[in-house]
Amino acid sequence: MHTIQDLIDLALAEDIGTGDITTDAVVSSESTGRGKIVAKEEMILAGLDVTRQVFLRLDPQTRFATACHDGDRASAGQTVMEIEGRLTVLLQGERTALNFLQRLSGMATHVRRFVDILGDRPVRLVDTRKTTPGWRVLEKYAVRVGGAHNHRVGLYDGVLIKDNHIAACGGITAAVERVRRRVSHLVRIEVETANMDQVEEALAAGAEVIMLDNMDLAAIRRAVTTIAGRAQVEVSGNVTAKTLTPLADTGVDIISVGALTHQATSVDLSMRIDP
Amino acid sequence: MHTIQDLIDLALAEDIGTGDITTDAVVSSESTGRGKIVAKEEMILAGLDVTRQVFLRLDPQTRFATACHDGDRASAGQTVMEIEGRLTVLLQGERTALNFLQRLSGMATHVRRFVDILGDRPVRLVDTRKTTPGWRVLEKYAVRVGGAHNHRVGLYDGVLIKDNHIAACGGITAAVERVRRRVSHLVRIEVETANMDQVEEALAAGAEVIMLDNMDLAAIRRAVTTIAGRAQVEVSGNVTAKTLTPLADTGVDIISVGALTHQATSVDLSMRIDP
Amino acid sequence: MHTIQDLIDLALAEDIGTGDITTDAVVSSESTGRGKIVAKEEMILAGLDVTRQVFLRLDPQTRFATACHDGDRASAGQTVMEIEGRLTVLLQGERTALNFLQRLSGMATHVRRFVDILGDRPVRLVDTRKTTPGWRVLEKYAVRVGGAHNHRVGLYDGVLIKDNHIAACGGITAAVERVRRRVSHLVRIEVETANMDQVEEALAAGAEVIMLDNMDLAAIRRAVTTIAGRAQVEVSGNVTAKTLTPLADTGVDIISVGALTHQATSVDLSMRIDP
Amino acid sequence: MHTIQDLIDLALAEDIGTGDITTDAVVSSESTGRGKIVAKEEMILAGLDVTRQVFLRLDPQTRFATACHDGDRASAGQTVMEIEGRLTVLLQGERTALNFLQRLSGMATHVRRFVDILGDRPVRLVDTRKTTPGWRVLEKYAVRVGGAHNHRVGLYDGVLIKDNHIAACGGITAAVERVRRRVSHLVRIEVETANMDQVEEALAAGAEVIMLDNMDLAAIRRAVTTIAGRAQVEVSGNVTAKTLTPLADTGVDIISVGALTHQATSVDLSMRIDP
Amino acid sequence: MHTIQDLIDLALAEDIGTGDITTDAVVSSESTGRGKIVAKEEMILAGLDVTRQVFLRLDPQTRFATACHDGDRASAGQTVMEIEGRLTVLLQGERTALNFLQRLSGMATHVRRFVDILGDRPVRLVDTRKTTPGWRVLEKYAVRVGGAHNHRVGLYDGVLIKDNHIAACGGITAAVERVRRRVSHLVRIEVETANMDQVEEALAAGAEVIMLDNMDLAAIRRAVTTIAGRAQVEVSGNVTAKTLTPLADTGVDIISVGALTHQATSVDLSMRIDP
Amino acid sequence: MHTIQDLIDLALAEDIGTGDITTDAVVSSESTGRGKIVAKEEMILAGLDVTRQVFLRLDPQTRFATACHDGDRASAGQTVMEIEGRLTVLLQGERTALNFLQRLSGMATHVRRFVDILGDRPVRLVDTRKTTPGWRVLEKYAVRVGGAHNHRVGLYDGVLIKDNHIAACGGITAAVERVRRRVSHLVRIEVETANMDQVEEALAAGAEVIMLDNMDLAAIRRAVTTIAGRAQVEVSGNVTAKTLTPLADTGVDIISVGALTHQATSVDLSMRIDP
Repeated sequence: MHTIQDLIDLALAEDIGTGDITTDAVVSSESTGRGKIVAKEEMILAGLDVTRQVFLRLDPQTRFATACHDGDRASAGQTVMEIEGRLTVLLQGERTALNFLQRLSGMATHVRRFVDILGDRPVRLVDTRKTTPGWRVLEKYAVRVGGAHNHRVGLYDGVLIKDNHIAACGGITAAVERVRRRVSHLVRIEVETANMDQVEEALAAGAEVIMLDNMDLAAIRRAVTTIAGRAQVEVSGNVTAKTLTPLADTGVDIISVGALTHQATSVDLSMRIDP
Repeated sequence: MHTIQDLIDLALAEDIGTGDITTDAVVSSESTGRGKIVAKEEMILAGLDVTRQVFLRLDPQTRFATACHDGDRASAGQTVMEIEGRLTVLLQGERTALNFLQRLSGMATHVRRFVDILGDRPVRLVDTRKTTPGWRVLEKYAVRVGGAHNHRVGLYDGVLIKDNHIAACGGITAAVERVRRRVSHLVRIEVETANMDQVEEALAAGAEVIMLDNMDLAAIRRAVTTIAGRAQVEVSGNVTAKTLTPLADTGVDIISVGALTHQATSVDLSMRIDP
Repeated sequence: MHTIQDLIDLALAEDIGTGDITTDAVVSSESTGRGKIVAKEEMILAGLDVTRQVFLRLDPQTRFATACHDGDRASAGQTVMEIEGRLTVLLQGERTALNFLQRLSGMATHVRRFVDILGDRPVRLVDTRKTTPGWRVLEKYAVRVGGAHNHRVGLYDGVLIKDNHIAACGGITAAVERVRRRVSHLVRIEVETANMDQVEEALAAGAEVIMLDNMDLAAIRRAVTTIAGRAQVEVSGNVTAKTLTPLADTGVDIISVGALTHQATSVDLSMRIDP
Repeated sequence: MHTIQDLIDLALAEDIGTGDITTDAVVSSESTGRGKIVAKEEMILAGLDVTRQVFLRLDPQTRFATACHDGDRASAGQTVMEIEGRLTVLLQGERTALNFLQRLSGMATHVRRFVDILGDRPVRLVDTRKTTPGWRVLEKYAVRVGGAHNHRVGLYDGVLIKDNHIAACGGITAAVERVRRRVSHLVRIEVETANMDQVEEALAAGAEVIMLDNMDLAAIRRAVTTIAGRAQVEVSGNVTAKTLTPLADTGVDIISVGALTHQATSVDLSMRIDP
Repeated sequence: MHTIQDLIDLALAEDIGTGDITTDAVVSSESTGRGKIVAKEEMILAGLDVTRQVFLRLDPQTRFATACHDGDRASAGQTVMEIEGRLTVLLQGERTALNFLQRLSGMATHVRRFVDILGDRPVRLVDTRKTTPGWRVLEKYAVRVGGAHNHRVGLYDGVLIKDNHIAACGGITAAVERVRRRVSHLVRIEVETANMDQVEEALAAGAEVIMLDNMDLAAIRRAVTTIAGRAQVEVSGNVTAKTLTPLADTGVDIISVGALTHQATSVDLSMRIDP
Repeated sequence: MHTIQDLIDLALAEDIGTGDITTDAVVSSESTGRGKIVAKEEMILAGLDVTRQVFLRLDPQTRFATACHDGDRASAGQTVMEIEGRLTVLLQGERTALNFLQRLSGMATHVRRFVDILGDRPVRLVDTRKTTPGWRVLEKYAVRVGGAHNHRVGLYDGVLIKDNHIAACGGITAAVERVRRRVSHLVRIEVETANMDQVEEALAAGAEVIMLDNMDLAAIRRAVTTIAGRAQVEVSGNVTAKTLTPLADTGVDIISVGALTHQATSVDLSMRIDP
């Protein structure tokens, strides 16, 4: 929550800097106006609240009306928010507000496509830490709005023991044990594995989640059979819209997809202002 | 420069937060290691310096070696940077550093495609303010690395008089005059126009740059003829890779393309660590 | 990690403010000196690193020597750290550095007493969120140094469903389900219960940890029997050094004790400076 | 005042971090509720205002009712504050607010015991700089609420010339003189002395306050007689509740006690929330 | 806009610090009062808004009444603002608020004298970057209020190629070309010249503004004749009130004067408070 | 110390902002150079350290050589500091560094004139809180370098009871008593008086310093005679270079002069850079 406010401040500072020299010269600070944010293509909305926060940061008296909520599907031409306030605030907040909304809605729309491909298959589609620096919490939110789930937010709220951790400890068993002592009893331990031996060792060490990294479909199926419900199974590694269904059908519990965040682009929205 | 440091801090805070609980438990703070950042596909590199800054922020003693520079074309499998330092720092900086590099290189690669389409046509391809909030300076940099040019950075370093400004003033002439008094003699004044009457009025008011917003090719050609070198001419409005060439061939001086930044996605890079 | 630096800055600012007017007037900024931090009573050391950070923040050239590590038992009269650097830095950092070390070591020493009471009983002694505002990460660290374990660090890295959450949702089952959808698969869900009915409902809803809040020993024993290993069992509520052993002997997995942090006081350390 | 806001922000950030994942999932952001903060044991209240600030930081619309003031004695079971506002805000601010109030009230209660021991003896009981880093202003405030007085707040608002300062200058006389030139005429100069010779030299140099550091009762009595009202006399050094009365009866003006702050623990308060 | 808020915070922190110990002790936080800011000499007002911001930062409920605007000439004895609010806020904000207003009004008054000397000569009087660190935006504003114009605000919003830049590039032509590629088409390029050869080279390279640095009147006249309207001409270098008119009469377009900002002093204003 | 770093950051941010577009385009980041700061008129130097800090903030590797110290009298043409480092750093730090040095040296030079007028009269010349917002600590330092003394730094480190405080309390006696209880025994209490009755009351209440505000010479002499050494006597109110000597000759202990800070202007220094 705190980092979102910091990001808004950074964004307004980089856009307005030492002052909007155009507006400053021609618009009276007392003029008021109304703005409408309009979708220019079909999209899943995400980010209406951060959009409001941008204008409120410039003037806490700004008022809003909207019949839409995050997660709604908006069609081309639909008004998604109305804003009323000082004209200088509308003009100075416009670009930053739209830049937030177009990117988060673009991501939710992109994620929804992956979700729709999976349909009601009993598998959890999750994101990764491959997010835009500074945007972790917002993008993880857009992923949920799009209908997928979150993996850990960062290095501090979940354990994933990778090859380098294993090497540093001298083995999966030692690594799991050391981590277990260090972390809260509320934290599940996940171990990344590259082959069947590692899967067995992770299982024996008591890992609660086992990640199968970049394995082929046959190996994944074998691992699922071996694990047999004793741990959750996650697959990972360059998953695309095409490989999604075959992966889901192997019986894994979780599929993590970096592309949910790092391949999303913005959708088109604009703002019309009436003084 | 300052805002980049702030963004790095935000990014490290959101990823590491109150501590990397996995690494903390299993890796000694004295262990050292080497990392290699490797391109997994062909790309134009951008962001090598910010990548270094991420690791330096965690430990100023970290050392780097690289034979590459921003703007170089890297091929799949090529090592683009080597990093040597504390193993905990390599593990904790890895994801954030890659997240910067993959996005900026993705953008430079994307921009280069637009630049290549234009070839040596005598037109300036420029970006817009449709950037990722918090990333303005970095993305404007990636655009230059990709071979295109920058429009104003924000509202503070360039004047663009739009319809709302004109309405608030009662006309283009008054708006140009008021802005001229307010700003430095080093600032050129650009006026956004929607039709031929506005073009004439802007010209008469002494606008140094005239933006033709969302006009069709015929109208653009007519405007170029009318203006006849008395002002620079910029076209704008949903320009795509397809419409780029015909637009350039109208004889305008500048084409601004929001898609340079808001339609870019990340390229694939990874980091291998050897303890 | 970030918040610790912020806290050090706050601490130096509140002590030095606009300048150490005494030292400023009488000590040359070129003079150097040596300081020895000495334990004045027996203690478990905790906080040697943050102690160093205080002096480094004032001057990154300050040097340190120590034969001690956090977790060591120091005896009265023992030198625990030597510091060499500018005399003004030693004088200005002294009080703040000692204030950190005396409090964290005091807490580790206090926690160790609880740990020693439990001996090798198979129960996990954990802290709570009843910590000194601004000190969460440091105090959770001192608890581990003292030999106990951590509960969740904050509201963001673990789930504990309490009576108000249950009321807001209309029942334990609904609450667990909603939380499960929202959080990562790496997060275990804990439910606070006040009676046997709630224990059963939590178990049925799939809670991985069940907290028995303020129950008497008989009720706790009954709950342990009912749960029978299907979830971890935590007891909580005004646990003291006296009630610790009987609670452990009920067979619960986890005992959380707010007093580990909120009843700790400082131990006595001082610094001798030789110019 | 500024640092208190910073500390509240730090405290909320460390507890809420990237979001309260439990409340987020189960409580609607529109729900409202009422909370009652209740004393669970007898105590002197301190910190009601900072408690309010915690909730106001989360939502400036939160409302409060209280019949109590800082300095009041509350009994077990007494409601000390009522809070009305958004349920999410009550749940997210509860722990941080209580952590402030329980610690400051604990300190005021602890200080009051020392004050009561002294009764109406004509001596000023003062604190030291042995406070919790980040909490200087708050703890100095709790000391006043408890009925004792403050020594200087930090190194910037009072002069205390110690052995190292004297050594660096080559004598008490030179040190006093140099400091006198440097500081405002509103600042009194205190000199720390270890024996009678130093007392005499400090007096001759014009010190307005003389600290007798770790002297025995006989030496203190002799010093009081010698000084004879020409300077204020302060005693210092491991003063406890037991040594307080004999020290006061030597006729000194001021007794400084580190234990006022560094030996205080929290008292017990809880919050009941009704949705 | 952001930096002004930062400067206000810095100013309040340096004045109030850990608390106004006088007011704290004697004024109830509930008392209210009225203050009048009165001009004690004739002046051009500048800074009424930042003056209000100081009090609003301490308490957003403070109310103001004023019949004056920035740019007005106030006479000795005239009330320029009335403030109503908490008495503690009036007392704590008074000095900081007046310190802003007296300095900015002093600068506007000082600038107005230079403007009046020039009368209606067709030349643009501009400031420089020789401003008080931290005050750039405020002082540039006071210059405009005084009736003069701004040069670039900083290094980021205008180009001035100086001797060192030319030396680093190997010539004016190369420098202009490189800068042109780097910057937006909205930015005019200015080149500093020391003699006629450099003027010719700058002109040939397409410089839009040519600065004549420290040339005598004869050389300036020659340069104006040579340039003949093909670029704007700016003179610079220790301009004083005395040299202003002869310089203007050479026909240059712009005169930049560091003394507008670095030789301004404060005017006298005071605040009377009625409880 | 902290606020000076903040002010340097603010100053660099406002000058460099999103980047020095001129230098960026034409100077390689690897080029190094040397700069000389030269006095262009006679002056008392002040601010050499903050000047160095500006360059060090841009690059901690920058090196300096200087034969001068703050307080030295420099003559026109004298080199006061040499700087060696990256050329981009010299160019980007130049203006900000000079802006600090020219202002602080200007103030020290201005203060020295007042000090010289007083000669060896036994009176303490002190500054006020009428300083440039954000510059309190730096300007108070320049005052000392110039040879005068400081009054309290802010509202937190000294007590001055004014008419409004007296009115709020119902009298000087009550005000002094309340403040005495609240503040440390190291703080002297000053009372502002407007007439002889108030002087008597302040004296009776035990004020250690009495300020005679805007009294004429006869009244001041009478007050000095009445007070007769029982308190320090300070005069205040629009003191100028002309009224200084007669005021000193009344026998007061302290003269406070706002003009020391608010009437100071910059002296002339420049920097020559050799690549």
